Amino acid sequence: MNQEAIAILGGTGDQGLGLALRFAKAGRPVVIGSRKVDRAEQAAKEVLEKVPGADVTGFENAEATRRAPLVILSVPFEHSASTVKGLKDVFEPGQLLVSMAVPLAAAIGDGAMRTVGVWQGSAAEMVESLVPDGVRVVSAFQNVAAHRLIDLDHPVECDVLVSGRPKDRDPVMALCDLIPGTRAINGGPLGNARIVEEMTALMIGLNIRYKKPEGCGVRFTGLLED
Amino acid sequence: MNQEAIAILGGTGDQGLGLALRFAKAGRPVVIGSRKVDRAEQAAKEVLEKVPGADVTGFENAEATRRAPLVILSVPFEHSASTVKGLKDVFEPGQLLVSMAVPLAAAIGDGAMRTVGVWQGSAAEMVESLVPDGVRVVSAFQNVAAHRLIDLDHPVECDVLVSGRPKDRDPVMALCDLIPGTRAINGGPLGNARIVEEMTALMIGLNIRYKKPEGCGVRFTGLLED
Repeated sequence: MNQEAIAILGGTGDQGLGLALRFAKAGRPVVIGSRKVDRAEQAAKEVLEKVPGADVTGFENAEATRRAPLVILSVPFEHSASTVKGLKDVFEPGQLLVSMAVPLAAAIGDGAMRTVGVWQGSAAEMVESLVPDGVRVVSAFQNVAAHRLIDLDHPVECDVLVSGRPKDRDPVMALCDLIPGTRAINGGPLGNARIVEEMTALMIGLNIRYKKPEGCGVRFTGLLED
Repeated sequence: MNQEAIAILGGTGDQGLGLALRFAKAGRPVVIGSRKVDRAEQAAKEVLEKVPGADVTGFENAEATRRAPLVILSVPFEHSASTVKGLKDVFEPGQLLVSMAVPLAAAIGDGAMRTVGVWQGSAAEMVESLVPDGVRVVSAFQNVAAHRLIDLDHPVECDVLVSGRPKDRDPVMALCDLIPGTRAINGGPLGNARIVEEMTALMIGLNIRYKKPEGCGVRFTGLLED
């Protein structure tokens, strides 16, 4: 396992692919995971085309998970639980799993401007309830628009709220240094993910009302700059 | 009733007083409401000291409500329902009631970094369920820090998400023109208040973690500027 590698499960979707592009561009080894190995390989090829020389590979989700200490869960919400359950014999204690999941009501056939309630409080806490002991869960990147990530010629202009245990947050907050325009914000305990996740639904609504298919971002003022 | 007047119930609290100062400074007549008339009068005096020549008066909440077409509810969450219920014979059809309420768990003796669930979905929707027919409810200003409002020498640097029916939102969005540094954002239907209210709890947590007692603000990028 390459200690520098970042695995992205669901790395074939827009947001996961966007993160893969950004991390690859910053020089980090990226392992794209998908349910189907050929889709993962195809996404890796796409990254390589846009970032020549990138260290990027594609594997089925289980194999991708074995190849990185830090794993980002970027599958659609309706596949989050089953994906994590399917990996319970694969995860190693000490691995860090980053939940980007947002319980959009689109998962049940309603709109993406609304959410459904999750029993555990948030998608991130649901994920935490499903991982084996010793696997640490942090939530981050829910509010970062896919199109902004994919557009490598421009900074992302979005703060990233990172929630989880203090020691677990640090390596995830450090990832924001790899993505120009993002700033890591200490989002407190994992339970706060319920607010950060809801913000994504709000922001999708803003994108629709203001006709911004490329997606808006969020910034907190008066926090880091002075 | 002066059609230009803005009534602020709970205008003696930090956030309500901050709005009163800003609106008074912008030249609008301000009516401060409180449960006790002497506290309202005292707050009006404070505004007059900081904004010489301001058109500002103080009354008991019912009398304040009678004096403005636009009424801002700025009482602590635990008094929101009882305040609105107590005014049901006072409200006139066509009046606009702006809910700033946030269901902070502080209301039940827990912290301000968390919220309690509200049966109607949000404090704003609870308020809407309590007003007489014809009174229109909009939510706004939940995320604006009191200290930033009170500090008249500096712009507020915060976006204001305004949620409610389209026609009802417009006059409330226009209020942001009176507060330098704020930008009105179309926050969609009133149900979105549940997210905006939760954001306040998140931002209070950020203020504590980043030691910013003056309070942070929020901005949405890529929405209005390009």
